[in-house]
Amino acid sequence: MTEARIDFWFTMGSTYSYLSVMRLADIERARGIKFRWRPFHLLLILQDMKHVPFADKPTKSHYMWRDIERRAAMYGLPVKVPAPYPVKQSVTANLVAIVGMREGWGVDFVRAAYRRWFQQGEETGSEPNLSSSLRDIGQDPARILALASGEEANKLLLSATDAARQLGIFGSPTFAVGKEIFWGDDRLDDAISWLQHGSVRRQ
Amino acid sequence: MTEARIDFWFTMGSTYSYLSVMRLADIERARGIKFRWRPFHLLLILQDMKHVPFADKPTKSHYMWRDIERRAAMYGLPVKVPAPYPVKQSVTANLVAIVGMREGWGVDFVRAAYRRWFQQGEETGSEPNLSSSLRDIGQDPARILALASGEEANKLLLSATDAARQLGIFGSPTFAVGKEIFWGDDRLDDAISWLQHGSVRRQ
Repeated sequence: MTEARIDFWFTMGSTYSYLSVMRLADIERARGIKFRWRPFHLLLILQDMKHVPFADKPTKSHYMWRDIERRAAMYGLPVKVPAPYPVKQSVTANLVAIVGMREGWGVDFVRAAYRRWFQQGEETGSEPNLSSSLRDIGQDPARILALASGEEANKLLLSATDAARQLGIFGSPTFAVGKEIFWGDDRLDDAISWLQHGSVRRQ
Repeated sequence: MTEARIDFWFTMGSTYSYLSVMRLADIERARGIKFRWRPFHLLLILQDMKHVPFADKPTKSHYMWRDIERRAAMYGLPVKVPAPYPVKQSVTANLVAIVGMREGWGVDFVRAAYRRWFQQGEETGSEPNLSSSLRDIGQDPARILALASGEEANKLLLSATDAARQLGIFGSPTFAVGKEIFWGDDRLDDAISWLQHGSVRRQ
């Protein structure tokens, strides 16, 4: 394989993305794999598809939290479930994330925001999560929130979302190895296998 | 754990269930785990939830077949994708399956019907799949299809579907260890871990 990298496509309002956000750094270290973090605005794609996951589906939501709780335990990740959901302002968090990816502190912000959302019950995309997460990583909320509400951040996010749509992405997280996509935190091993062998093999 | 068994809840029109149907026998042998096969009629539950998976979602359907193809290869299972989908008469296949579970040839029927559906492109629940699968396993189609259209089979299937609903099941396959449910072929390892340790651990 010529691709030496996995694109990690995620949206800040996605619950299962917590499991990936919190473990990619360890996987990079342990397995020598490089992830490129790509925030996009999933809701735009789901609106096209007339589908919002878990909304008005209490049985499925209940299961989702239980599944996340069990798998977070498996990964050794602290979690307080249910976290606030659905998230009202995921777009703002995505805009901040995309500014951060450009400036170099995006991954730290995403991790801080997920930690506050899933460990302290602070809804992502709203205050106090936004400003506190920025302060946690040494960034000035006033400067960043101004950038995030500007035209350039909006263009970057729309462009990333178009690129996700072109790849056939419809959920978060999605891992992409070239044009091959793998949906769900539970497909990360499949994506790594594809990167290394060009096929999905048992790990 | 006092439970020494995993309930395998499945519906015959479910695509991902193919992956489980074809590998449970090997897992029983290799790991000494007993599965109880529980056909139910998922569409009744999905109608309650106003949700039919993959219908009118071409992007997601496309992904589903690719995902199944990659994972079937990982398990060493032959597969011709896309198989006919959605299935028009999954209820008939479920009725035959539930008669078979009572008479003792149910697992063989389910495997034969999935093999024809996923390896030969014969839609499950319709002819020729129904009668051919019964003949494959040495059963008389006329006798079985009469039983499957009778009141008793219908009652059994409704009762199994109610039991699934009570457990909070909303998809197929679902593995249940007591009241703990695990949705998806990709959660089978989690279910086995729960059975053996009472928690989800890395395998």
